[in-house]
Amino acid sequence: MILERIASPADVKRLPRPELDQLAREIRETLIRVCAANGGHLAPNLGVVELTLALHRVLELPRDVVVWDVSHQSYVHKLLTGRAGRFETLRQAGGISGFAMRTESEYDQFGAGHASTAISAALGMATARDLKGGSETVVAVIGDGAMTGGLAYEAINNAGLLKSNFIVILNDNEMSIAPNVGSIASYLGVLRSKPFFTWGREVTKGVLDHVPLGGTARKALSTAELAAMRFVSPEHKAPVIFEEMGFRYIGPVDGHDLDTLIDVISNARKIGGPVLLHVKTVKGKGYDIAEGDSRTFHGVGPGVYHPDEGKLEKKAARITFAQAFADALIAAAQRDPRVIGITAAMPDGTGLAKFAKAFPSRYFDVGIAEAHAVCFGAGASTRGIRPVAAIYSTFLQRAYDQIVHDVAIQQLPVVFAMDRAGFVGDDGPTHMGLYDVAYLRTLPGITIMAPRNEYEVGPMLDLALTLDGPAAIRYPRGSTSGKHDEPLAPLVLGRAEVLREGSDVAILALGNTVDVALDAYELLDADGVRPTVVNARFVAPLDETLLIELAETHHRFITLEEHSLAGGFGSAVVEFLSDRGIVAAVERIGVPNVLVQHASQAAQRAQVGLSAENVAARVRTLTPSQTA
Amino acid sequence: MILERIASPADVKRLPRPELDQLAREIRETLIRVCAANGGHLAPNLGVVELTLALHRVLELPRDVVVWDVSHQSYVHKLLTGRAGRFETLRQAGGISGFAMRTESEYDQFGAGHASTAISAALGMATARDLKGGSETVVAVIGDGAMTGGLAYEAINNAGLLKSNFIVILNDNEMSIAPNVGSIASYLGVLRSKPFFTWGREVTKGVLDHVPLGGTARKALSTAELAAMRFVSPEHKAPVIFEEMGFRYIGPVDGHDLDTLIDVISNARKIGGPVLLHVKTVKGKGYDIAEGDSRTFHGVGPGVYHPDEGKLEKKAARITFAQAFADALIAAAQRDPRVIGITAAMPDGTGLAKFAKAFPSRYFDVGIAEAHAVCFGAGASTRGIRPVAAIYSTFLQRAYDQIVHDVAIQQLPVVFAMDRAGFVGDDGPTHMGLYDVAYLRTLPGITIMAPRNEYEVGPMLDLALTLDGPAAIRYPRGSTSGKHDEPLAPLVLGRAEVLREGSDVAILALGNTVDVALDAYELLDADGVRPTVVNARFVAPLDETLLIELAETHHRFITLEEHSLAGGFGSAVVEFLSDRGIVAAVERIGVPNVLVQHASQAAQRAQVGLSAENVAARVRTLTPSQTA
Repeated sequence: MILERIASPADVKRLPRPELDQLAREIRETLIRVCAANGGHLAPNLGVVELTLALHRVLELPRDVVVWDVSHQSYVHKLLTGRAGRFETLRQAGGISGFAMRTESEYDQFGAGHASTAISAALGMATARDLKGGSETVVAVIGDGAMTGGLAYEAINNAGLLKSNFIVILNDNEMSIAPNVGSIASYLGVLRSKPFFTWGREVTKGVLDHVPLGGTARKALSTAELAAMRFVSPEHKAPVIFEEMGFRYIGPVDGHDLDTLIDVISNARKIGGPVLLHVKTVKGKGYDIAEGDSRTFHGVGPGVYHPDEGKLEKKAARITFAQAFADALIAAAQRDPRVIGITAAMPDGTGLAKFAKAFPSRYFDVGIAEAHAVCFGAGASTRGIRPVAAIYSTFLQRAYDQIVHDVAIQQLPVVFAMDRAGFVGDDGPTHMGLYDVAYLRTLPGITIMAPRNEYEVGPMLDLALTLDGPAAIRYPRGSTSGKHDEPLAPLVLGRAEVLREGSDVAILALGNTVDVALDAYELLDADGVRPTVVNARFVAPLDETLLIELAETHHRFITLEEHSLAGGFGSAVVEFLSDRGIVAAVERIGVPNVLVQHASQAAQRAQVGLSAENVAARVRTLTPSQTA
Repeated sequence: MILERIASPADVKRLPRPELDQLAREIRETLIRVCAANGGHLAPNLGVVELTLALHRVLELPRDVVVWDVSHQSYVHKLLTGRAGRFETLRQAGGISGFAMRTESEYDQFGAGHASTAISAALGMATARDLKGGSETVVAVIGDGAMTGGLAYEAINNAGLLKSNFIVILNDNEMSIAPNVGSIASYLGVLRSKPFFTWGREVTKGVLDHVPLGGTARKALSTAELAAMRFVSPEHKAPVIFEEMGFRYIGPVDGHDLDTLIDVISNARKIGGPVLLHVKTVKGKGYDIAEGDSRTFHGVGPGVYHPDEGKLEKKAARITFAQAFADALIAAAQRDPRVIGITAAMPDGTGLAKFAKAFPSRYFDVGIAEAHAVCFGAGASTRGIRPVAAIYSTFLQRAYDQIVHDVAIQQLPVVFAMDRAGFVGDDGPTHMGLYDVAYLRTLPGITIMAPRNEYEVGPMLDLALTLDGPAAIRYPRGSTSGKHDEPLAPLVLGRAEVLREGSDVAILALGNTVDVALDAYELLDADGVRPTVVNARFVAPLDETLLIELAETHHRFITLEEHSLAGGFGSAVVEFLSDRGIVAAVERIGVPNVLVQHASQAAQRAQVGLSAENVAARVRTLTPSQTA
């Protein structure tokens, strides 16, 4: 295998040209094989094999810089930068991350997991280079989906002012995760369909014959220096937004034509100022079933498909929190015509795709634009609509000011369905939902809830939709085990649920950590130790009445949460007890201020002590009959 | 006065046309007089007198909707909607807010204090209307400065998809607070200088004679129905970005020509889909000194100018925290060539204007684009640059995900200089910096500091610039009183400063609340009660050693902070004591989860108990010798 001989980008540069095609095939085979076993972002990586090879062929890495937007498409780059040997460990604990990580390799020059940051970061790098008098090439690779995010636009606007030399490669596959939406998507469609800019090698190959230019111009354009000029065929004087914004636009270029890519990127380096290179790629390229269903194959879990046999039968899995949310939203919308659903380009992950089918006119995919999703909802809510914004906890961070400024200060009834709250498993630190309670519970009038299991999602959504102000519901990726599917007590605003009446120690568990508490209870019960177990349900408003009651009989608490310990649920409990002058020992179990790396959710939970064994051990320590 | 007779928009509609000019004069006189006394956003409001009159003349308010972006330009609207009689109370406690507020008037349909939200909110409103089958007109008025914010772009992108009927009025005065920056600004400059679109009344007045159209077209265009078509003069085929993004572009129109505005807005209502009306206005229009210096007159404090005498001599005020920061940044930049300063369109407020003069090539105004400011800094920091992002606490909320995702997760050494932390006085809830500690202290490896006075800003900045990871410095608007200017102990990472060694009660004060503690100490000292007073300096890392020491001798704490009590500094103290099993009574004084309305900073502080009198009273309650 050629891939085995590639230890660094220098090896890619040394390869005879014909071997690059073989290398591309080997990379695709590796991607398909490893993602089948480990899960991963298969389709995006299949789409950038040639683009990545071309970048490695042309640039001097790591002296030059490539910033991968979102960086879920950086697997090929990882395979070419000394990590092919370890690639089998992709997304496994202790193994290769599914995203670019500065701590993993000097070739990963900027990490990412959220969209739309690459142009901004690359502009910062280009500016740093200019300040230091360097000459390295800085490249940002960004998808068309990420171009719907405001940060990309802010950076483009600033680049037009700074005029720094850098290259933005628009990796245009007509998709984000789902089909891309909005006017920028339509506009790119126009550009894509009209190849009125041609370049470099293609020009010298004969495409020029179709371009109505005089002989002199044609001759000049066959030289590399002048290839950096653009052609405009007369019938297509369509303006290019990027040129209006101060970029030199090149494209569209076939993103699977390696020779053209190498030529075009080489030429683009020679142009001064910001350059936007528009590359057309196919998500899932080279693997039929992924090309045909790039939405499914955008990111897959382990065992979703077999390299040869294709997509595997889906196991009849337990309903997920996301599915429970989708069903509940559909039911709510059936009852109440004011209810709408909003997603920021995540119809599948949030479950809203199902809602979209049921209520197409009340479903809004606003693009990768969380701030707008929230502000749009705030606006709609002033006119009697009940918006539900389904946004992962980690992505809702992008809308924080809209939550504060547009929703909370105005006390508008927008509901935030925060999926992927807590640990997310394989995706690692950039995708963790560990901060939402802390960043939300400062806000006046907000209600914050967490369902203990899938069946509590619906009642919480229903309650949220009756409130006059903002409400947030946090729930985790995946499902609970189903082991503790017990009848739910009716939901009352600000009231917790006592699940086990015990003594000495009260375990106050938030959301899915209730199951950890119940498992711990079983372990302890066998030894005759019986703590009280509470399903907290609400972070705001806290069930103060219950806390006071419990403090009278227990005096020892353990709080459980899949959230940062700083300012989280346990912090709210400690604040309340302190403010009331209640002396009680409180042990808080949650996530300390460290980065928890990618691993299974179970391993991540165990790492911070959110396991039945640890909780049981802590209860034993705190229980007088055990310690005495 | 005509203004006295205007109780609602219906009165504006009834006025004979000639009286509108007189009304405009009266409005300007009122604005100039009241802002001289109370302070306020004079120049922006002088610039929209005719635009607001035209909107009130054409629309049916409040059935129709106007969303004012930032809404500091909504004074004229307030004067015309039943609030002229109370306008003397502008920005005073209990009086008229300086921003649109839904709780103040049914005519304030969407509140704002931050930029770039109006298009998004208006699109939400238009969507709500469509879902409900309504027909009201929805208008967003947004400045050219706010168009540099990504949220505006996200909304425009989404509008192109939804195709809802609504009107965006681009109030283009070539400024945000400071001159507007970036390629969108340059681009608007191009549009502004080439009036290739003309409309309505102007057309019928004879401008049409200069447009090369045939007689039939000319005749048709003299009718109102068809006036909604655009003309393009042949020499200006410049593309219009807004048209590419799915908007019908109209303009540019003279924003001080009332008749034209009335006609154009009337016509714009008749066009289907999203319409962008480009209006050229002059900030400070009609008041010479404000027109000549709109940067100063954007927002003024009370007594900055006299209506007749113009700008008043500036009192030799005590140095502000912002000025101290600017001086410290300049000194740091002189020592270290890696230091750069970044602002998001606030060079004057942050003090960076002074830095810009000293180091023009190391100064970056990225536009109203806080997310980009932070991500740009993160990128630069990876290449050996030491970026200092000077962003008000409230505006840094707009960059929250970049702080988490780009800076903290990567442990990059970006410094956040968070001005206006705490209460901001007259500007009210939208500008408060009350959440930063809570939203930052969850993040791994971050250092959070607060200087007790102006002289501690420099040492904290210097320390921040030596750290390997992110650091944030929070400091308030204005100055301290200067009463407690005592020598500062040297700054050591994570170490607090004991200012008064007392007994029984230890007051742990953060930032400018140290002066409250010292004033309280003086009150108590007179009675022989001497609490310990600590300048906390650090929220993260906390001075745990000192807390343990103090707990051994005191057992009673009072924490002071100009920040939300939920998850703030006091919360961090309570968490620590609880985690260590230290039993200590802690009274936390700070801001509860309620909206504190506009008033003086002193009044706001007193409202939540951050006064020397209250703190002294609380100490007395907690001191055994007093209570026994």
